[in-house]
Amino acid sequence: MITIAIDAMGGDHGPSVIIPAALAALKKQPDIKLILVGRREPLLEELARQQAGENLRLIVHHAPEVVEMDEPPAQALRSKKASSMRLAIDLVKQGEAQAAVSAGNTGALMATARFVLKTLPGIDRPAIVQTLPSIRGHTHVLDLGANVDCTPEQLVQFAIMGSILVSAIEGKSRPRVALLNVGQEDIKGNDTVKKAAELLRASHVNYVGYAEGNDIYTGDLDVVVCDGFVGNIALKTSEGLAHMIWHFVRYEFKRNWAVRLAGLVATPVLRALGRRFDSRRYNGATLIGLNGTVIKSHGGADAVAFEYAIFEALSEAQNQVPERIGAELLSMLGTGQVA
Amino acid sequence: MITIAIDAMGGDHGPSVIIPAALAALKKQPDIKLILVGRREPLLEELARQQAGENLRLIVHHAPEVVEMDEPPAQALRSKKASSMRLAIDLVKQGEAQAAVSAGNTGALMATARFVLKTLPGIDRPAIVQTLPSIRGHTHVLDLGANVDCTPEQLVQFAIMGSILVSAIEGKSRPRVALLNVGQEDIKGNDTVKKAAELLRASHVNYVGYAEGNDIYTGDLDVVVCDGFVGNIALKTSEGLAHMIWHFVRYEFKRNWAVRLAGLVATPVLRALGRRFDSRRYNGATLIGLNGTVIKSHGGADAVAFEYAIFEALSEAQNQVPERIGAELLSMLGTGQVA
Repeated sequence: MITIAIDAMGGDHGPSVIIPAALAALKKQPDIKLILVGRREPLLEELARQQAGENLRLIVHHAPEVVEMDEPPAQALRSKKASSMRLAIDLVKQGEAQAAVSAGNTGALMATARFVLKTLPGIDRPAIVQTLPSIRGHTHVLDLGANVDCTPEQLVQFAIMGSILVSAIEGKSRPRVALLNVGQEDIKGNDTVKKAAELLRASHVNYVGYAEGNDIYTGDLDVVVCDGFVGNIALKTSEGLAHMIWHFVRYEFKRNWAVRLAGLVATPVLRALGRRFDSRRYNGATLIGLNGTVIKSHGGADAVAFEYAIFEALSEAQNQVPERIGAELLSMLGTGQVA
Repeated sequence: MITIAIDAMGGDHGPSVIIPAALAALKKQPDIKLILVGRREPLLEELARQQAGENLRLIVHHAPEVVEMDEPPAQALRSKKASSMRLAIDLVKQGEAQAAVSAGNTGALMATARFVLKTLPGIDRPAIVQTLPSIRGHTHVLDLGANVDCTPEQLVQFAIMGSILVSAIEGKSRPRVALLNVGQEDIKGNDTVKKAAELLRASHVNYVGYAEGNDIYTGDLDVVVCDGFVGNIALKTSEGLAHMIWHFVRYEFKRNWAVRLAGLVATPVLRALGRRFDSRRYNGATLIGLNGTVIKSHGGADAVAFEYAIFEALSEAQNQVPERIGAELLSMLGTGQVA
C-alpha cells in the first residue's frame, strides 16, 4: 500500500477538480491510500457532493491555510506553515506518505519541498523533470524551469538523476542521455554546455552527445538535459505550437458544409489524434533531487489530468526513485563523479 | 528592377533545386533580375536541362570554388575567396545586386557576410531573424542561432532591428516587441534578460514586456527577442514537434480500412492543413544588422522553399531594410540608445 498526500487546495480549481480525481484514482488503484490535505469543512462538503466520504483509504488531513497561486515563494515558506501544501510535504518528511502531489504555486512548492525534505547528497538544487511524447515513446526533459542559471556540474547532476529516474520507472539499464545544444558538432554551444559534455563523457552516464531541439520528439533519446531557462522555453514553445496546430485542425474541419461532413467522417480519427496529443496524459512533473517524491501538477489541470499526476506519484514511490538516486549518488561521491 | 545574387552551388541539392526555383521566381516576378553565382559549366548544363539559358534577367556569374556544408567558417573565409557564396555577397557589396541568397553553410555565410558587408553602426554582431506562423498572422523571432551568448545591449539591438524590419516589410508603425523569458513577472528570468528589459523600457521600441514560449504562436506579438541559443532551441523544438504531429496525423488516417476512407473524404482538409503548416512557406531567414540584405535558405530546401527565400530577399531589398535600420540607428546613436 502506497500512501500519497494531496494538496487538495492547490491549483486554479482546488477541491472541485482534485476530489473527483482522487476518487477516480482510488477506484482504479486498490493499492493506494490518499490523504487529502486542506480545510476540513469544504473538503468534506465536496466529498459529500460526490457521494463520498472518509474511509480507510481516503483521509482528510486538516490544514487551515492555503498558499495563493501568486504568493512569493519566500513569503509562503515563512508565513504559511500550516498550509495544505506545507502539511502535505510534511507528511512525506514524517514518513506518513510516500509522495506528495500539488497543483499549487510552483515556486512555493519548490521552496517548501527543498526546505522540508532537503536535497540529496551531491545535489545542489532540485530540478523539474517531465515526460514529453515522441514518435517512438517519450523523452524525459530536465530542468524545465527550477534553475534559470546552471553550472556544468548541475547539468551533470540533472543527467545522473534523469538517467536513474528512467532506469527506475522503465527498467532501462542504460538510458540514452543527451545535452540540449544548438548543433551536434563539438564546437557548437556555450562554455557551460561544452564543459558539461566533457564531464559527462568521463561519467558513468550513457551520454550520447548533443541533441538539438527536434531530437526531443524523435524518440531516439531517453533523457534530454538543459538549464531551466532553455527547458522552460522548449516546453512552453511546444505548448504554444500544439495549441496553434489544434486550433487550425478544428478550424479547417469546420470551415464549410462539405468540409464539415468530412470532419464528421473523420471524427474517430480526430478523436484518436486528440487522445494521442492530450496533454493531460503528460501532467505531473517531478521535483527531482529531493529526499522524497513531490509531483507538481499543472495549475489548470482538470480531474483527468490531476489523476495522471497522482499515478506519476504512485509510480515513482513504488519504484523508490529518490532512494535509488540517493544510493547511486552516494556510490558516485566515492568516485569523485559528483562533489 | 531588383537584382538578386544567388549562391547557386549552396545547400544539400545545389543547382538541381536552385535553378528551377530561380526560373519559377522569374516567371512570377517580372521586376527581378537574378544572377546565378557558381561554376559556369554545370550551371549552363542545368539551365539547358530546364529548357532555359542566360537572358537579360538571368545571368550566370562564374565562381570556381564552393564552400562545403561542413567547412569551418574561418577556413571558408580565408581560403575560398572565389566561392559562389563569397562572390554572391561581393556582388551586393559592389552594388551589382541588392540582395544575396544562399542555402550554404550558415556559419560560413555569417562570417563572409560580416567580413564583406560589415555590420551597421551601433550593431555588435548580426542576428538571424525568421518569420514563424501564429494563430493570427505571424511573428518575427531573433536571434535564431548566430549569437550563442548575448549581452543585454545586443538583445536591445535585436529588438530595434526586428522592430524596424516589421515596420518596413509590413507597414506597422509600432510593432509589438517582447523579450522571451520563463515567466511574465518582473522577478522572472536571468540577469541578462532583466537588464535588457530595463534598457528596452527606456527605449523608443514599443516594448510590451516578457513573452513565454507559447506567446510566439498566439499572434499577439510582432517581434520576439532572445539570444541565439534559446532561439535555436525554440525553432528546432518547434520543427521536431510539428514533424511528430504530422507523422501521427498521417499514421492515424492510414491505420485501417474504415479510417482510410475517412482520410479520403478528409483529403481536401488535410491538404489545406498541409499548406498551412508547410514549413517551406517560412523558408528564408535574414542575416540582419549588415550593410546589405543576405538571406539564408534552409540547406535542405526544395525548389518551392528556395523560391520563398528569393521572395524574402526581394521584399527586403524593395523595402530597403538595411538602409532603414542604418538610418534609425544613426539617429539613435545621437540619443544614446545604442552605443
